[in-house]
Amino acid sequence: MEKSDYLKDRVQHIDIKSFNAIPIIESMGNMSFSSRETARAAGICERMIKDPEATVILTMAGSTTAGGCQQIYIDMVRNRMVDVVVATGASIVDMDFFEGLGFSHYRGSAFTDDRELRQNYVDRIYDTYIDEEELQVCDRTIKVIADGMDPGVYSSREFIARMGEYLKRKGGSKDSLVLAAYEEGVPIFCPAFSDSSAGFGLVMHQWERPDRHVSIDSVKDFRELTMIKMKAPVSGLFMIGGGVPKNFAQDTVVCAELLGEEVPMHRYAVQITVADVRDGSCSSSTLKEASSWGKVDTVYEQMVYAEATIVLPLIASYLYHKGDWKNRKARNWSSIFKT
Amino acid sequence: MEKSDYLKDRVQHIDIKSFNAIPIIESMGNMSFSSRETARAAGICERMIKDPEATVILTMAGSTTAGGCQQIYIDMVRNRMVDVVVATGASIVDMDFFEGLGFSHYRGSAFTDDRELRQNYVDRIYDTYIDEEELQVCDRTIKVIADGMDPGVYSSREFIARMGEYLKRKGGSKDSLVLAAYEEGVPIFCPAFSDSSAGFGLVMHQWERPDRHVSIDSVKDFRELTMIKMKAPVSGLFMIGGGVPKNFAQDTVVCAELLGEEVPMHRYAVQITVADVRDGSCSSSTLKEASSWGKVDTVYEQMVYAEATIVLPLIASYLYHKGDWKNRKARNWSSIFKT
Amino acid sequence: MEKSDYLKDRVQHIDIKSFNAIPIIESMGNMSFSSRETARAAGICERMIKDPEATVILTMAGSTTAGGCQQIYIDMVRNRMVDVVVATGASIVDMDFFEGLGFSHYRGSAFTDDRELRQNYVDRIYDTYIDEEELQVCDRTIKVIADGMDPGVYSSREFIARMGEYLKRKGGSKDSLVLAAYEEGVPIFCPAFSDSSAGFGLVMHQWERPDRHVSIDSVKDFRELTMIKMKAPVSGLFMIGGGVPKNFAQDTVVCAELLGEEVPMHRYAVQITVADVRDGSCSSSTLKEASSWGKVDTVYEQMVYAEATIVLPLIASYLYHKGDWKNRKARNWSSIFKT
Amino acid sequence: MEKSDYLKDRVQHIDIKSFNAIPIIESMGNMSFSSRETARAAGICERMIKDPEATVILTMAGSTTAGGCQQIYIDMVRNRMVDVVVATGASIVDMDFFEGLGFSHYRGSAFTDDRELRQNYVDRIYDTYIDEEELQVCDRTIKVIADGMDPGVYSSREFIARMGEYLKRKGGSKDSLVLAAYEEGVPIFCPAFSDSSAGFGLVMHQWERPDRHVSIDSVKDFRELTMIKMKAPVSGLFMIGGGVPKNFAQDTVVCAELLGEEVPMHRYAVQITVADVRDGSCSSSTLKEASSWGKVDTVYEQMVYAEATIVLPLIASYLYHKGDWKNRKARNWSSIFKT
Repeated sequence: MEKSDYLKDRVQHIDIKSFNAIPIIESMGNMSFSSRETARAAGICERMIKDPEATVILTMAGSTTAGGCQQIYIDMVRNRMVDVVVATGASIVDMDFFEGLGFSHYRGSAFTDDRELRQNYVDRIYDTYIDEEELQVCDRTIKVIADGMDPGVYSSREFIARMGEYLKRKGGSKDSLVLAAYEEGVPIFCPAFSDSSAGFGLVMHQWERPDRHVSIDSVKDFRELTMIKMKAPVSGLFMIGGGVPKNFAQDTVVCAELLGEEVPMHRYAVQITVADVRDGSCSSSTLKEASSWGKVDTVYEQMVYAEATIVLPLIASYLYHKGDWKNRKARNWSSIFKT
Repeated sequence: MEKSDYLKDRVQHIDIKSFNAIPIIESMGNMSFSSRETARAAGICERMIKDPEATVILTMAGSTTAGGCQQIYIDMVRNRMVDVVVATGASIVDMDFFEGLGFSHYRGSAFTDDRELRQNYVDRIYDTYIDEEELQVCDRTIKVIADGMDPGVYSSREFIARMGEYLKRKGGSKDSLVLAAYEEGVPIFCPAFSDSSAGFGLVMHQWERPDRHVSIDSVKDFRELTMIKMKAPVSGLFMIGGGVPKNFAQDTVVCAELLGEEVPMHRYAVQITVADVRDGSCSSSTLKEASSWGKVDTVYEQMVYAEATIVLPLIASYLYHKGDWKNRKARNWSSIFKT
Repeated sequence: MEKSDYLKDRVQHIDIKSFNAIPIIESMGNMSFSSRETARAAGICERMIKDPEATVILTMAGSTTAGGCQQIYIDMVRNRMVDVVVATGASIVDMDFFEGLGFSHYRGSAFTDDRELRQNYVDRIYDTYIDEEELQVCDRTIKVIADGMDPGVYSSREFIARMGEYLKRKGGSKDSLVLAAYEEGVPIFCPAFSDSSAGFGLVMHQWERPDRHVSIDSVKDFRELTMIKMKAPVSGLFMIGGGVPKNFAQDTVVCAELLGEEVPMHRYAVQITVADVRDGSCSSSTLKEASSWGKVDTVYEQMVYAEATIVLPLIASYLYHKGDWKNRKARNWSSIFKT
Repeated sequence: MEKSDYLKDRVQHIDIKSFNAIPIIESMGNMSFSSRETARAAGICERMIKDPEATVILTMAGSTTAGGCQQIYIDMVRNRMVDVVVATGASIVDMDFFEGLGFSHYRGSAFTDDRELRQNYVDRIYDTYIDEEELQVCDRTIKVIADGMDPGVYSSREFIARMGEYLKRKGGSKDSLVLAAYEEGVPIFCPAFSDSSAGFGLVMHQWERPDRHVSIDSVKDFRELTMIKMKAPVSGLFMIGGGVPKNFAQDTVVCAELLGEEVPMHRYAVQITVADVRDGSCSSSTLKEASSWGKVDTVYEQMVYAEATIVLPLIASYLYHKGDWKNRKARNWSSIFKT
């Protein structure tokens, strides 16, 4: 097979506005097992959007953006259902920014010969293919952005805002979470930013400029995110997957306390994950466990054990069609930072 | 808490006719991961319903009937989307027949004190409650049915037909899979019939009649199911969970061969499960693995790794609204057996 | 590849007597997560073996016998650590009896072309291969045994005792669980007996003799197993996998009650499984949940979430070297049944 | 219950030198399913230790250090079985450095009331407890270390070396991975360093010194780790869990290529994880998938799906007693960095 045979069928991002999941979610609320948990999670998300005091933090890990959920995240940001994003580097750079540059992911197969893919410079994520040469364009675009910045120490949030600015300036028809967040005043944090295509671009940038270059300080990210928690004491977490973003967002409660400011635990928390609780990792730890750490309140919390591409479209469509976002004010947390 | 506090909120069975999942499933077909697998599974089910030669075998394990999917199964049988059912005893007796007698399952919590439930004669299935005293009525009804039969050796199919007849005769407003299958000519097999409320009723029946009583011979079940496979060489499997029903239905191909009749492998196969492939159990074995045994063809097969209450409503609603069942003829396999 | 290329490396059954897992298990008792759960499970098994009143019931589902654990089960029975076995048909017939006839399982690969296996009559269980022609010899041997019996209704226990007798009469060097149990007075129950190679043999038997033949009545199994529970009120369950055997063994408590005899819940219960609790199936249900049904006491119960071939050798070696079986009396439950 | 009631039984770290797992692992190599995969993984680890050209990179995610595996990691480093460590911040700071300061984790229960734990300042990881006040001492020690450093931009490796130096200077009897790695010339990288107790300490440090302070640049980590890969082209990965460490270590192959130097893929790769492959996240992606990205070679790779505290002690004891480390030279990669 030729490379073009592998890269034929584009992943198309589901449009939660095009169907109304309210009747399904409401029916599921009267069932059992994961369906009822999904419905309860949707209800808690609805509450956090309705709560006039609450700031909604979306955390993202895994590959849902590659897998057809990008438009969901864009719709949630454009329609004021999300105020802050904490994500893995790959979600933001390799997947979202990459699509923002005009590239696509492709529908492939999990049952394939990876050596043959390798020979064709096709990268695989489970059943999804990526053109590695396009990904290298993404890496290099990061380098170009870094090259254009003043040398110094930045948070990932600052750098990602430059990526949004780049997409806006460059124009083009394709929307992305990076662009939408930039335009809507929603800060995006990637506490492990270099663990991504951004890492490749930034290493190339620093390699050329060993002495004066851009550095990304995730301590600064932590400070900034904690500042938001201090200014927005009531908060809700909508977590897709676990990983560093989940832990990082939860930790702001403790961090504020250590800086001398008592803030309440996250009032609402929902997580969609397939991670197994038994290995004691944070990704899989229950939200009840998080309450022992003083991070998450136990009244409105719900874990949904499912691969997110199945249930996220239902929950997000429910939230969209419930329409509570219509009267919601944008929090515009980006504005509290000078740069 | 009192018993009545636990048994307040009934599980309500989702109505796939009341919402149209076609746009969701079609969108999922262009995504990745479990959403695309769900869409592909729906497409294969559609093919098996459309295929004028094919007999559709539904296999059921797990507790989806208790969890709000009973009406789905009824709708599939009443609308000629299913021709044969192979199920666990609990699915058919403790859950479906139990509801057919007018009882309900209740929405509860997975985080509860089981000793307190015990004291109140409340049984728990994950987050779902059952009144144990009502379940004993179910056990005793089985005994009554057995008491009224001629002593002898029966297949579970024969016994379950008597249960359908009982529900029909007794009347009452509540539909059930046992009743629907009885009325629509759809045979139901429970190869491990005594591993259920039926087992309790039948043990009481035999205990009172040590010498002349009803026996259930699962070898007879196997013979009968293989006879159907011989008369209906083209077949498709729609499997909810794994367990004995999955294995039993698959084995008919090999059994027919041993009886001297070459029959083709199952042409279509879909399974929804959360079972983990790595322990080598049949419940979790992939459908590709089944093809090494000569049981399932590999062209139209799809595993969906998900808790069934989330994805089954979407798939079944898709099938219902696609409407291919409208011109489909009932196979009426019950009619080939004298009793 | 030729068939003989696939069937080269035999699975060899681990010998728990050849290494001493006591130091490992004791160290694991002071750790966390699954290691501590494994150690606690080993401790509960030790208790049930030590308890002079207790009858130990081993339940088996999955493919551990094919996967190299056959000798563990033989050693447990030969050394009086197990008094009753409840198992899937495949565990007893396709795997144990099959090996008892002198055949083997083979080490293969989970990453293989199943169509090629099919062409070579090689069956696959995850990473393990079976010669399908040898399996058909097993099917036919079951037929021969049935052909030699008086027509009538039997429990699976009765039939499996005939299989043990057959192996003893036939002689040969290879030990098996069926043979060991036969010789040691340990009854084996397969409540879904026909869902196995036995099913194939018995269908052929009945097909030839439509009127007078052997039938297997699992209600009789349930009666017999409940009789043991009535005579041995103190009991412990050592469960490998879930499925029908788990449920069946647990249900005896309730069944005895329905027959008018109050018996205590199972005093000890250990289960090793990879099943996921969230689908509400019995295979995965926690032992705490079972206590809501009045089946299992909650003081000495432990779930171990692991694929059994990793932890069972450790637990069984620990039990063997602890040596509590040395002074234990055989319960000889087979002797209470006439046939 | 009082706090002291929760914090009674310390987690004790298993000593792989005290028992010999060679016979168990060798037996498992002739079995099937996860036991054979465990044995094959042990064999690949043995190969990477034996290969005179190979650098062994240990990656750590999850809570195995809290769960009783700390001494395993120390033993592997002290005995030249590991040359580089890439880990989550929590593994290194909250767990290992924390124990290095003289504190302990405690054996608790996964079935507990988290609100009560909260009131007692007891943090829970599944079934393991931590004294939150001791953890705050750990946070503050990080601040003290940062306060004593020259303001500037550091890699996490540089900072962790200071932590090793701190432990050495402070003395005390308790060994730790941070100390052992410092003394043995093994660099430790935490690409998401601030997502840990270190984050709390460093935020406090920066909060007090808004203008001149220590920053942690994970791009620098990526540069440094890639430099090692360039100097040590033959490499093997021993991965406990997935997360950022797995991805980061794998990415060095691609990064070197982007910097203009062709390096081979990782020659050996073993991962122990419970993560589910189906969500397309890196944590769970198979090593075959990684080969499509040009990161991992496919000849010597093995996934082991198990909670690591069960299988890691067996594998590590096997490696220790095989003794291939005895003639192995320390790679001393710390020495290539000036600071």
